[in-house]
Amino acid sequence: MNEQALHAVHAEVLAVGDEILYGDIINGNAAWLGNQLSEAGVRMTRSAVCPDDEPAIAAAVTEALGRAHILILTGGLGPTQDDLTREGLARAAGAELVRDPGLESDLRRRFSELNRNVPERNYQQADLPVGATALPNTRGTAPGVRFPMLGGVAYALPGVPHEMYDMFTDSVLPELVGHGSVIVHRILRTAGMWESAVAEALALQVEELRGNGGNPAIAFLASGGQTRVKITAQGPDRASAATLIAPVEAAALAALGTGVYGRDNDTLEGVVLATLRERGATLAVAESLTGGLLAGRLTDVPGASSVLLGGIVSYATAAKEDLLGVPAETLAAHGAVSDETVIAMAEGVRDRFGATMGLATSGVAGPDLQEGKPVGTLHVGVAGPDGSFARSLRLPGQRPQIRASAVVSALDVLRRALINAHTGS
Amino acid sequence: MNEQALHAVHAEVLAVGDEILYGDIINGNAAWLGNQLSEAGVRMTRSAVCPDDEPAIAAAVTEALGRAHILILTGGLGPTQDDLTREGLARAAGAELVRDPGLESDLRRRFSELNRNVPERNYQQADLPVGATALPNTRGTAPGVRFPMLGGVAYALPGVPHEMYDMFTDSVLPELVGHGSVIVHRILRTAGMWESAVAEALALQVEELRGNGGNPAIAFLASGGQTRVKITAQGPDRASAATLIAPVEAAALAALGTGVYGRDNDTLEGVVLATLRERGATLAVAESLTGGLLAGRLTDVPGASSVLLGGIVSYATAAKEDLLGVPAETLAAHGAVSDETVIAMAEGVRDRFGATMGLATSGVAGPDLQEGKPVGTLHVGVAGPDGSFARSLRLPGQRPQIRASAVVSALDVLRRALINAHTGS
Repeated sequence: MNEQALHAVHAEVLAVGDEILYGDIINGNAAWLGNQLSEAGVRMTRSAVCPDDEPAIAAAVTEALGRAHILILTGGLGPTQDDLTREGLARAAGAELVRDPGLESDLRRRFSELNRNVPERNYQQADLPVGATALPNTRGTAPGVRFPMLGGVAYALPGVPHEMYDMFTDSVLPELVGHGSVIVHRILRTAGMWESAVAEALALQVEELRGNGGNPAIAFLASGGQTRVKITAQGPDRASAATLIAPVEAAALAALGTGVYGRDNDTLEGVVLATLRERGATLAVAESLTGGLLAGRLTDVPGASSVLLGGIVSYATAAKEDLLGVPAETLAAHGAVSDETVIAMAEGVRDRFGATMGLATSGVAGPDLQEGKPVGTLHVGVAGPDGSFARSLRLPGQRPQIRASAVVSALDVLRRALINAHTGS
Repeated sequence: MNEQALHAVHAEVLAVGDEILYGDIINGNAAWLGNQLSEAGVRMTRSAVCPDDEPAIAAAVTEALGRAHILILTGGLGPTQDDLTREGLARAAGAELVRDPGLESDLRRRFSELNRNVPERNYQQADLPVGATALPNTRGTAPGVRFPMLGGVAYALPGVPHEMYDMFTDSVLPELVGHGSVIVHRILRTAGMWESAVAEALALQVEELRGNGGNPAIAFLASGGQTRVKITAQGPDRASAATLIAPVEAAALAALGTGVYGRDNDTLEGVVLATLRERGATLAVAESLTGGLLAGRLTDVPGASSVLLGGIVSYATAAKEDLLGVPAETLAAHGAVSDETVIAMAEGVRDRFGATMGLATSGVAGPDLQEGKPVGTLHVGVAGPDGSFARSLRLPGQRPQIRASAVVSALDVLRRALINAHTGS
């Protein structure tokens, strides 16, 4: 790595607005900007939301530019009394707000195109702090502001997402790229492993990378019953960063083994469907605990119909007998929540749909025990040309998490069965 | 309003985590907390996101408690090396981290319930800064932290939303309420109406309330094929605010008619299941376009099994014939995406499960046309003791939005059918 990579640009994001602060709007702009800045190799020191209040905006701007060189503001550029971003920037810099004649005539032109006069209040959108320049808004009336101030640069963009995206891409991004270094991510996606087991498997690697200054770095993100391993490297360009990632990725893959089902934007359901498709196999699902969510997840994938023939949600016990052909004796002897029943469900649905593979779930989602079995109990059944088997698991959490994790677990049991069938182990 | 209302508690929210800063996760927690704080009459001075970095966390904590009396942190309490919220709090307060024997034994108990040993790394979740106390986590392994420090109080909550919601409600909210003025919301939930139609129906009311100073105020929030009408009033106490809401709510209900299916935390699936249960009716669903999501949504509701007998996902056309008994001639003459087929599906699934009502979906989720029908086409079929009918709709958006809206539309078609059957219209 060369010297330059160590001097990454630091940036912050500041959203202005009570409606974001109090959660009437979720701050998707900050997430989008965070993604963009990460890809441009810009490091973020903080992201914040402040109220529609001139002194509060000015204070947040001053603090942000004390930590970072670049500040990107969103919102507060509209025509109402609550739109105070221009005022806040001017106050922070100790600059006056002056009406810009060019912006004023742009406003008149825009409104006349709509056969309207400019409402008096809208003229504030033509104001700029002395020393700032306007950023063109190709999609709306509020121009942005580029303001070199307090030893850095503040960019004020509109709060409306598509206006903000365009202005950032057209006017801000070109000034950021090429300054710093580039950050490249590789995500390894695991299923069927607890987050702590993933962290444990990679503990030595993480320790060693920390000792080497944290480039590349490894982070763990657990959600919905899956753990993602994110390897991040920084370098002067994409190729150098990728070169740093390669050996770490190879070592992580070796440590995690079949726990890894995919990379980057892969999904577990997509990988399972693709594996089946490669082998010319079809699938049908029988769901009790997951109640349709398993089929729903598989059919999220465009083109799923060439593999997934369909499914049966056998929520009522009678449906397990009538529609899936689970023998009454099996239900009586072992209960609906059992390895025996879930195997019969998988075999039944495979048979009903004439599919290569059958996959079934049964268990206890809660809030109450069922057949004396605890909340979180899951049985997964797999039936295929080589026979049938079941796995039973105990999932943490409450009803929604148990159901979501059960979908992931069922898909992962099938995925591992397909790997084992293939390797003959 | 009395004097007390002018002395509101000031609070800030700080989310810890690179994955939020760089937009891998949208900060929904901050929005939820902002809403809760607003309802509790707490004023927010700032909300922020900081990286997984101990000095950065400590600095953000110190700054926040310089502006506000209450700081609520989310995230960074997990078992991995990246989870540094405890460390950041300790550093900001100049306090040591000490392992708590009670928390240590809680961890052991939780893991033994899952038949697992505590991974070495997880023990860091039993650490607390000296002077802090633990907040119980009823849904996960990470306890929260309550830490009186720097002249205020910091509450560190988990980043996992449902764990955070519970801990905030149980352990933080009771310490906040009663300080300032109170904001009360009433939400009216509509389905089967476009947002613009809802806004149109209430336009005069909105105008009038604006003229009266915006207390109460009406806002529209559209998502997932539904539009919520949020009526917000502010007053010195809950009763006075509720008194302001009542007449506005009555007028809105009159203007929106059967478009309103419920209030506040009602869900469309919950209302449909409750209506069926009241009438002693049962339901079975047949899904093509929605591919399991409709059954999945209904089975989200605890106790759904007393009404929902089950469903059939007939993704492959052959499954529509074999499992649902849709006549081959119907499929040949009208196609799978048609009123005729969806009626036959609803009748077929009603018959197979022996349910009072059958509900079916067919359509085109995209990305490609099907049978020459455009992406977004939806047919909903309803079969019951009084006969069958179909509705066809055209839904906007792409595959994920179309599938989600189709679930809502199907539930709403059934809901309206049940209302009409009941009123005999």
